[in-house]
Amino acid sequence: MSHSDPHPTDRPAPKAVVGRVSLYLRQLETFEREGLNRVSSSQLGAALGINDAQVRKDLAFFGQFGSPGVGYPTQDLILKLRKILGTDRLWPSALIGLGNLGRALVRYRGFFKRGFQIVAVYDNEPEKIGSKIHRLPIKPIDELAQDARPLGIELAILCVPADAAQLVANQVVAAGITGILNFAPVPLVVPGSVSVVSVDLAVQLEHLAYLVMSRKPGFKVDAG
Amino acid sequence: MSHSDPHPTDRPAPKAVVGRVSLYLRQLETFEREGLNRVSSSQLGAALGINDAQVRKDLAFFGQFGSPGVGYPTQDLILKLRKILGTDRLWPSALIGLGNLGRALVRYRGFFKRGFQIVAVYDNEPEKIGSKIHRLPIKPIDELAQDARPLGIELAILCVPADAAQLVANQVVAAGITGILNFAPVPLVVPGSVSVVSVDLAVQLEHLAYLVMSRKPGFKVDAG
Repeated sequence: MSHSDPHPTDRPAPKAVVGRVSLYLRQLETFEREGLNRVSSSQLGAALGINDAQVRKDLAFFGQFGSPGVGYPTQDLILKLRKILGTDRLWPSALIGLGNLGRALVRYRGFFKRGFQIVAVYDNEPEKIGSKIHRLPIKPIDELAQDARPLGIELAILCVPADAAQLVANQVVAAGITGILNFAPVPLVVPGSVSVVSVDLAVQLEHLAYLVMSRKPGFKVDAG
Repeated sequence: MSHSDPHPTDRPAPKAVVGRVSLYLRQLETFEREGLNRVSSSQLGAALGINDAQVRKDLAFFGQFGSPGVGYPTQDLILKLRKILGTDRLWPSALIGLGNLGRALVRYRGFFKRGFQIVAVYDNEPEKIGSKIHRLPIKPIDELAQDARPLGIELAILCVPADAAQLVANQVVAAGITGILNFAPVPLVVPGSVSVVSVDLAVQLEHLAYLVMSRKPGFKVDAG
């Protein structure tokens, strides 16, 4: 790789680009179901409200696709984008914390459809341990370390309460798992080798409330 | 308001600022539970990994708080931030789509704790309609329009499949509801007077997979 290369091959793409690639992939799968064998960047962009120059620029980040003017073969592009995102294979994942949200996510088919397979579930409440959810036995969190390697667990989905999240994250890291999807409403401190993506549902709702409020007549930004 | 005013009072704060204010509020509530009556911007920042200049700048967006050097009274700041975010009152909300995710969110206490009260639930499957979830009767989506005003519904939480999302969003808009929290993995087209915040859980997981992959030895950004 030369330093003048506009697309360095060893640095990950920015979050915004990866997010849009996820959207492109979803749209392409819709196009494929609809029988569209070939798709142009402008068709893809139009369906998502993104301009076609942005679509081409995002895809160019990952290499050369298709030929100018003739569009991309839909199925081929789907396979390439899955490979880029790493979802061309299954990611064995552990789900930790079986409150309402955790129990729902175990059953949420949207994860599995994208390649994320929950292979083990953990909780710390004695009355839950030993029972099953979605055919998986609920185990104490202490067993994560011994399970991680034999089960090939690569990701952890954290649905524990805020005040337990950091302690559980430490156990996840100690088990050698390098990816955490964090639903606990608290920032996690992890080593640089571990990736965390946080989803705080209440923050999203608060932002929505703020947007709705700010569009009402008489809105003032000042709280005073 | 003069044009030289650095804090215009009629334009909403940027998303990033509102997101951080949500985090500040959460941290302040923790501090209050811990008995801390007064908090400085550096304490608040340190707990969240945000520098104190940023904390002060974010708060200054919404007016004047506290006095330099003496910090903020914790409880007072909590009440002000709730008022800023609009969560100093309840937001009656409708939840639409009672699949696994929807059923979980009806029971998710994290929403209610932040002021979002689910007052009605809707689905389109005949076998679900009439039964109850969390003490709420499941109604057909067609009844949303007549319910919205008497129940005071201000927000809709959409947990419907991707291919139904736009149609349901149209019904939400027609019912006069101006805020949508969208869990369907598809962008929604709505009038400018309606606010949408989208949460695509699979996109978050795909981003996590990409981050984990990009940190493995031998990673190349190029898919070719």
